[in-house]
Amino acid sequence: MENINKVLGDTVKKSIKIAYIGGGSKQWARTFMSDLAISEGLDGEVWLYDIDKVSAERNKKIGDLIAKNPQSIAKFKYIVAEKLADALTGATFVIISILPGTFEQMRSDVHAPEKYGIYQSVGDTVGPGGILRAMRTVPIYEDFARAIEKHCPQAWVLNLTNPMSICTKTLYDIFPKIKAFGCCHEIFHTQELLVIALRDILGINAEREKIYTDACGINHFTWITHARYQDIDLLEVLPKFIDKYYEEGYFEQKGFDRFAFKTNPFAYGNKLKFNLFRKYGVLPAAGDRHLAEFFNNTWFLKDLDTVKEWQFNCTTVDYRINQMNELICETIEMSEGKKAFPIKKSDEECVALLKAILGFEKIVSNVNLPNRGQMLDLPLGAVVETNCVFTNDSVEPVVSRPLPSEVNNLVLRNCINIETTYEGIKARDLDKIFHAFVNQPLCSTLSLDNARNLFNQMVSNTKEYLKPYFVL
Amino acid sequence: MENINKVLGDTVKKSIKIAYIGGGSKQWARTFMSDLAISEGLDGEVWLYDIDKVSAERNKKIGDLIAKNPQSIAKFKYIVAEKLADALTGATFVIISILPGTFEQMRSDVHAPEKYGIYQSVGDTVGPGGILRAMRTVPIYEDFARAIEKHCPQAWVLNLTNPMSICTKTLYDIFPKIKAFGCCHEIFHTQELLVIALRDILGINAEREKIYTDACGINHFTWITHARYQDIDLLEVLPKFIDKYYEEGYFEQKGFDRFAFKTNPFAYGNKLKFNLFRKYGVLPAAGDRHLAEFFNNTWFLKDLDTVKEWQFNCTTVDYRINQMNELICETIEMSEGKKAFPIKKSDEECVALLKAILGFEKIVSNVNLPNRGQMLDLPLGAVVETNCVFTNDSVEPVVSRPLPSEVNNLVLRNCINIETTYEGIKARDLDKIFHAFVNQPLCSTLSLDNARNLFNQMVSNTKEYLKPYFVL
Amino acid sequence: MENINKVLGDTVKKSIKIAYIGGGSKQWARTFMSDLAISEGLDGEVWLYDIDKVSAERNKKIGDLIAKNPQSIAKFKYIVAEKLADALTGATFVIISILPGTFEQMRSDVHAPEKYGIYQSVGDTVGPGGILRAMRTVPIYEDFARAIEKHCPQAWVLNLTNPMSICTKTLYDIFPKIKAFGCCHEIFHTQELLVIALRDILGINAEREKIYTDACGINHFTWITHARYQDIDLLEVLPKFIDKYYEEGYFEQKGFDRFAFKTNPFAYGNKLKFNLFRKYGVLPAAGDRHLAEFFNNTWFLKDLDTVKEWQFNCTTVDYRINQMNELICETIEMSEGKKAFPIKKSDEECVALLKAILGFEKIVSNVNLPNRGQMLDLPLGAVVETNCVFTNDSVEPVVSRPLPSEVNNLVLRNCINIETTYEGIKARDLDKIFHAFVNQPLCSTLSLDNARNLFNQMVSNTKEYLKPYFVL
Amino acid sequence: MENINKVLGDTVKKSIKIAYIGGGSKQWARTFMSDLAISEGLDGEVWLYDIDKVSAERNKKIGDLIAKNPQSIAKFKYIVAEKLADALTGATFVIISILPGTFEQMRSDVHAPEKYGIYQSVGDTVGPGGILRAMRTVPIYEDFARAIEKHCPQAWVLNLTNPMSICTKTLYDIFPKIKAFGCCHEIFHTQELLVIALRDILGINAEREKIYTDACGINHFTWITHARYQDIDLLEVLPKFIDKYYEEGYFEQKGFDRFAFKTNPFAYGNKLKFNLFRKYGVLPAAGDRHLAEFFNNTWFLKDLDTVKEWQFNCTTVDYRINQMNELICETIEMSEGKKAFPIKKSDEECVALLKAILGFEKIVSNVNLPNRGQMLDLPLGAVVETNCVFTNDSVEPVVSRPLPSEVNNLVLRNCINIETTYEGIKARDLDKIFHAFVNQPLCSTLSLDNARNLFNQMVSNTKEYLKPYFVL
Repeated sequence: MENINKVLGDTVKKSIKIAYIGGGSKQWARTFMSDLAISEGLDGEVWLYDIDKVSAERNKKIGDLIAKNPQSIAKFKYIVAEKLADALTGATFVIISILPGTFEQMRSDVHAPEKYGIYQSVGDTVGPGGILRAMRTVPIYEDFARAIEKHCPQAWVLNLTNPMSICTKTLYDIFPKIKAFGCCHEIFHTQELLVIALRDILGINAEREKIYTDACGINHFTWITHARYQDIDLLEVLPKFIDKYYEEGYFEQKGFDRFAFKTNPFAYGNKLKFNLFRKYGVLPAAGDRHLAEFFNNTWFLKDLDTVKEWQFNCTTVDYRINQMNELICETIEMSEGKKAFPIKKSDEECVALLKAILGFEKIVSNVNLPNRGQMLDLPLGAVVETNCVFTNDSVEPVVSRPLPSEVNNLVLRNCINIETTYEGIKARDLDKIFHAFVNQPLCSTLSLDNARNLFNQMVSNTKEYLKPYFVL
Repeated sequence: MENINKVLGDTVKKSIKIAYIGGGSKQWARTFMSDLAISEGLDGEVWLYDIDKVSAERNKKIGDLIAKNPQSIAKFKYIVAEKLADALTGATFVIISILPGTFEQMRSDVHAPEKYGIYQSVGDTVGPGGILRAMRTVPIYEDFARAIEKHCPQAWVLNLTNPMSICTKTLYDIFPKIKAFGCCHEIFHTQELLVIALRDILGINAEREKIYTDACGINHFTWITHARYQDIDLLEVLPKFIDKYYEEGYFEQKGFDRFAFKTNPFAYGNKLKFNLFRKYGVLPAAGDRHLAEFFNNTWFLKDLDTVKEWQFNCTTVDYRINQMNELICETIEMSEGKKAFPIKKSDEECVALLKAILGFEKIVSNVNLPNRGQMLDLPLGAVVETNCVFTNDSVEPVVSRPLPSEVNNLVLRNCINIETTYEGIKARDLDKIFHAFVNQPLCSTLSLDNARNLFNQMVSNTKEYLKPYFVL
Repeated sequence: MENINKVLGDTVKKSIKIAYIGGGSKQWARTFMSDLAISEGLDGEVWLYDIDKVSAERNKKIGDLIAKNPQSIAKFKYIVAEKLADALTGATFVIISILPGTFEQMRSDVHAPEKYGIYQSVGDTVGPGGILRAMRTVPIYEDFARAIEKHCPQAWVLNLTNPMSICTKTLYDIFPKIKAFGCCHEIFHTQELLVIALRDILGINAEREKIYTDACGINHFTWITHARYQDIDLLEVLPKFIDKYYEEGYFEQKGFDRFAFKTNPFAYGNKLKFNLFRKYGVLPAAGDRHLAEFFNNTWFLKDLDTVKEWQFNCTTVDYRINQMNELICETIEMSEGKKAFPIKKSDEECVALLKAILGFEKIVSNVNLPNRGQMLDLPLGAVVETNCVFTNDSVEPVVSRPLPSEVNNLVLRNCINIETTYEGIKARDLDKIFHAFVNQPLCSTLSLDNARNLFNQMVSNTKEYLKPYFVL
Repeated sequence: MENINKVLGDTVKKSIKIAYIGGGSKQWARTFMSDLAISEGLDGEVWLYDIDKVSAERNKKIGDLIAKNPQSIAKFKYIVAEKLADALTGATFVIISILPGTFEQMRSDVHAPEKYGIYQSVGDTVGPGGILRAMRTVPIYEDFARAIEKHCPQAWVLNLTNPMSICTKTLYDIFPKIKAFGCCHEIFHTQELLVIALRDILGINAEREKIYTDACGINHFTWITHARYQDIDLLEVLPKFIDKYYEEGYFEQKGFDRFAFKTNPFAYGNKLKFNLFRKYGVLPAAGDRHLAEFFNNTWFLKDLDTVKEWQFNCTTVDYRINQMNELICETIEMSEGKKAFPIKKSDEECVALLKAILGFEKIVSNVNLPNRGQMLDLPLGAVVETNCVFTNDSVEPVVSRPLPSEVNNLVLRNCINIETTYEGIKARDLDKIFHAFVNQPLCSTLSLDNARNLFNQMVSNTKEYLKPYFVL
């Protein structure tokens, strides 16, 4: 990082430039701008770059309104970038949060496999949908990596896009000296669940930030091997909580009812998580909708009845489209000042991580990085999610406790599938990608022929987007 | 090895003691005795130990007849051992070839899963049958390892029993300094196929022993990455051969018609092997019946029609019983001198390997050993099958060429399942064994509940044999 | 850890039992008791066990006086343990700080090699003295490990004894599930030096605790690869500081003059450290007296003139004896209340680490642990010193940045020597120990015969202590 | 390899093109041509390329005379290549055997260090001489690797030049798919010694080729861990032989008297080897002159008296020059037909290895290859010497038995020095090269300043050769 201090000494303001690539989910961008506004010790510029320039302009308007809000401590200027290079040049941080392709392409990712009896609860990480989405995303990330190497090689890059592992892999493979990591908030919810269990079972109130967990695995398939509040072992508290709520379910997320999973297609009752904890003695740390996709489809995603039994949902793309439209409307209202946007600290950690990197504090949090010793049971170089220490210009992984061998096997299978997917996309080799496709646990019930037909169909459905990169 | 030379110098006779544990398949024992009889430079004793003493006595009679045969060069004395210790004490070599449990238990291994739509072509290596067979076998091998450590720690141990990998693993885990390896003849048939292709396509006659292959993987799931006759690359010859015979099939084994697979349940048309070679560019080196069991059951073992389409067979236990009864009759006739047993060199390599270890020659052949560098993409310590150099008191693995990553992933998944199976059996932990069970590719279409029910059923079916070792 | 809370909730007092084995350097025990007295949230008992019971009793008296001091927040009871088992049973923490053997034996360690031209500046870590000291220490630590496994397997064990690496290695080798780490304050001084450079060159005042370093290596031979204050790269500030003070030297330790090294045999001018930083671009993080012993003796310890040139000292054992006597007098005076002992926070981190383990906070600090991924360029299982995250019942290593290969080579050579030393002592095999001895960089100028003579002499000098363990 | 058969079938003649780069030692080239002449099944062309064209022409003349000799079976045509590209294009094999630089430069390598008390017995592998020679050689090998990639990427490359490890490393680093290996005959002599011991102690006559050894390490510093003739353990025979000849010495090489070491500066009495075997229990497999250079110079090369005591010699460059002049005279006489050149099978294995690669036979022999599992205790990618299986287009390393840890430490230190030397030369970074220089065991007695002065001096002495590559 270049010198970014206005005045030296302890009272310095760090003046930073943030390049914000893509709109993120609409909600996420606002949350970030709000968290940024109330963080002490910072000012600077946020350059917004989006291939959908209208969207960037809306975010700028909201950003400007936030900056004018008297609650704002950190004064940031919001600028819409004409070109990627403009956003990147001189950036201290780069945040990437894109949607690769359209909702129609996502519709193919999520729903095309249903004709073959393959149901997906999310469809953006692994499984058929994850593979196709990776095929659209990796080539874009190759360009991002090259642009970052050229315009801001010292910048820290936060990736928020899914598929998380393969995006992060691409950045490091193309530009090995990049300072990048992949951020995901899934583990926070599981920590929240532990907070609830602690209160419910022992009557102790704790803040999520005071819970210490050691989790490891790959993104959306991480496992908590150690969880403590002070000197209380939370994994010993959990069984009682599970016994109490196993049957009727418990959705933990702040701002939601524990039965929210009965009506909200993004919610879940944690039954799957509870079941896996009982089975393996370590606690999966992602939402049940994500977890289900890493197992043979006969386990939790056999059909919609099975899904219902396990108390989670398969989010349809129609639902996503409606939700996005509502968010856009809300964004427009906010950007035009018609709807208030309350500034308050969110549950996200991104701004806190930025500040730690700037040297304000030390944080230990879970992020995605290439494996260089933190999980010796997975291949070196594969992107894994573990605790990392965030501090002065430094994000260093913590060596994680080993997973039970039967859990490691589950993780490893998916991890190597991701490696093979990446190799295939990098080489623009459809056959190699297909090998990873047919080995997906979600494709367990497919015959070879059906798997090939489905793959071809999904490639064909999204060929407009793939054509510039692949010989189809 | 102790000094075994009767007279020093080049004309020495090596006088060895062989402990032969179990009867092997009836046929195999005779073949071995015959090969032994015509090998130069050896004499000594063969101690036969079998819990079915009658069987050992029959083999002794055949051995005695062979020894009297004027064609015999090496004079061996055959002795039935009362106790395992008697057979082992002072042994130069130990050969282990047992059938763990009864045919009724094998019937459960092979056929019980059919109720759940799981078909197995062999059922003794991986899949539900492989796991249950391992549960019966490992405890016995723990005893063998301890007995060898006690009575003949310097002896070389040849394992012929399936499941090969886990038997070999047990021996090394219990007695780490053991000099053991696992022998399997599967690769020889694939080499024979290459001989045929060479003649068929290029008109060149070659002996199998002159074919050089580099194969690696795990037992019954090995892959040829390099195959040469002189300076001819056989993997470049193969595609033409495959194009020619893909549709109608080609069974390669000496003494059989190429269409034998249409009538013989142990034969196969190599279509599966051809298909995999086309897909991955490396040639699987086991019989199609074995290969099929390492993939999701939807690929090649979906149902009996699919199996037929792929030109192999699911061997029933009834067929095995009939076959065994015929062999026993034949054995009795031979042991009573009613049926002649022709002495001739077989296609097996065991006697040649023994002689190499005794310092007569150098051989490079494929066997199973714990991984200590020969396959860096698989876990160290796991039992892998690669080329090894056999020579003076020495069996050392050759570092194998790397497999394509998509093939390595297939092998790795099965390899780690075997590791988990072993850990579970060692710990007598049925839950851990079940984790390996449900992760079998052959169990891909099972729901969690069905998998558990099937596992419990198979354990229950074989409980008489398991009871001394497991808390059921 | 057992439940140690008196009252649940945030206002809980943790009631702990500390077993304090050995007297440590007299000074260190007092410092620890003082730090303990002023730490919030704790109370409990400190059991003092020392084979020199008089020394334990003196420490108890000082402890009692501290406890009575109105400044004390944490009330601890001090108890002299009759037996090791009494101290350990039920302990939350075990602190081990022993002097293995007598000063006469240390005299042999340090001075016997001088007859062969081998000078040692400390003589307790590596080099001839380090080896002999290890021979005396490892057998005692074997007993400690067994006793901890028996009496308090859940306790956290802080080792303070040198040779640090081999003591920590012994604990883990004998009792693999032990929760132990080795603590050393050497890096703190180097951090202090960075604070001074920051002030001197840029005029910025910083506290040492706010400096973030990534250091790695083996104890007393660690290297800082990254050092930041906020967003300032301290390794870029350092060269100017070095240029300014290279010739006249700079001793950094708080409470000392920068020229202290001219009169105090424990002090040093950092010239060696400066020189190595210029050479390798990474900053050695131990005192120069320690560093010198890891290189060929021709580099920095050729003779006393060379030592003087490099502005450090070889501490004589006579000096140590005098110093110890003074400390004992002072201790007696303090224990009798004749001399005041001021209670104030020291520079040591032990109490802070204890509190972090109890769940009060998160700390990132450098300690010694077996390598399980944190330094992939050193052997797994060897004890290495890296950053670790200390928090709720958890001490987990952070993966360190790689060292330049030429530095890694220097560290590796010493690291493997320590491994070989340990193997030799464990096997009570004097020949194997000698192989490690003669390969010490400090023995570079010894012929084989002289090395053997020296080794034999040093063994003979200390034979009273070694006899119970070795066949001499 | 391209198809090289003239006629298909078993009676085929392989028609090959050999590119012979450099003259080798004069003697070596002749030996090779002679061995080639009497090998069955081959014919073709040998293209001789030497920057000293006169030398190539002389070799051609000898080659032509050999071809005309009625004893010759394989008819080869000898052609002097004008350009490297001409020699390489279409080559089946490339043999590289160059002298990097002049004898005057070698004089600096070998004798310049003597002013600082550093004696070298050979000076071409490790130590100061090895480093400087590597600096001259690596840049040339970079060019060779590029030329081979361009002109004959399928050719097998035999490297005979020292420093062996670093030449082989360069070839693989520049052109990773190269099919190269480094050949050295040192181990053969140690095998011969074992033959002698067998006859001397047990009265058994054996041919060297029938001795089986497992040796591993790095070139000129390999260790035999297993040695057998038939079922006789030769490492158990050896101690008696050593006891018998330790004091007066025994030089083993065929054609020499056992006391040859008293008069011949290339010979040695094996006392050093005997001593190391007694110390470590494994037998060093290179000549004593080479071995001595891998240890601290105080061990065996302290001064010329010490060398004499150990019964080996430091070969002076004057001696080498004289010897070379004699060889040139002899070569001229031979090339002019004035002196007969007897055609007979030599002790070298090169032609046999070529034939194995062509598919004529299988050979297990020791060569140098990058580590990919054959020695897991040394870094992957470093060039190591182990047994390899030579056969049809294939040279695959055999996994070696582990070395005792104290021996592995000695090897590792030198191995990493070579890695660092290579990195330094590759980066043209004199400082990095110096780090490897000063860490040489042979530089153990040098102060830092003296080491730097010596290095600078040696660079300066050879600057004419280095200038095109380094900024001096």
